[in-house]
Amino acid sequence: MTSIPAYSADNIFAKIIRGEAPSVKIFEDEAALAFMDIFPQTEGHALVAPKRLGAVSLLDVREDDLQTLILAVQRLARATEKALRPDGVRVMQFNGAEAGQTVFHLHFHVIPVWAGRPMRRAHGHGEPADPAKLKELADRIAAAL
Amino acid sequence: MTSIPAYSADNIFAKIIRGEAPSVKIFEDEAALAFMDIFPQTEGHALVAPKRLGAVSLLDVREDDLQTLILAVQRLARATEKALRPDGVRVMQFNGAEAGQTVFHLHFHVIPVWAGRPMRRAHGHGEPADPAKLKELADRIAAAL
Repeated sequence: MTSIPAYSADNIFAKIIRGEAPSVKIFEDEAALAFMDIFPQTEGHALVAPKRLGAVSLLDVREDDLQTLILAVQRLARATEKALRPDGVRVMQFNGAEAGQTVFHLHFHVIPVWAGRPMRRAHGHGEPADPAKLKELADRIAAAL
Repeated sequence: MTSIPAYSADNIFAKIIRGEAPSVKIFEDEAALAFMDIFPQTEGHALVAPKRLGAVSLLDVREDDLQTLILAVQRLARATEKALRPDGVRVMQFNGAEAGQTVFHLHFHVIPVWAGRPMRRAHGHGEPADPAKLKELADRIAAAL
């Protein structure tokens, strides 16, 4: 797809994984990192990305890495549900800029939703969230793992 | 979550899997079924569901079934990209009615998107798609597997 570039190790998630850029982590293991989205669509919006660099999207990721990653997504979704007691959880994964992808390192969104609280506009609009507030949410989710 | 009911074997996807209700299939294997969404948000919108009955959502599915299922999602996304040449592909998975879930049998949405063509409103609104049109799309996607 024209809207999917080749993998670049300069993307922000690669920098986070290498420890060169800050993030608010929820958990990590050898293969995956779960961290807060700094432009959350709802309170508790988090991301899961594979630690191995190289996959831009679902289309080009190795099968074994994808199978490992989806268990981390499930782990995060379960902990989010337990910690924040939302009315539902949306899991979203975007391939290509036209689909809503803004960082070209494969990742899944885990977004808790509540009745009567609309989701905010996606990624990159407005100001980033308060890091202290994100840290508090990350700690609550991590405590429910 | 209050918006997630217990699994009921009367849900429409269970009926499709048992062969008691019609569907426009793209592919199936022992573990998964890929078929067209009858209320498509874009042309080519399809679903992947596990054949094993019992999991309502990502939260309660067995790990081994989830790992098998996500490879079928990848397979469908790749074939959709190859067959329909969209500008992007959205993968979505909803847990709970408030998150947008309308059938309480675990499934992933694979939704091709194009620049300048907005997605239609989600599931259950308006008239279902023309089955002949869905069959033509399913055949094109299946040919790209």
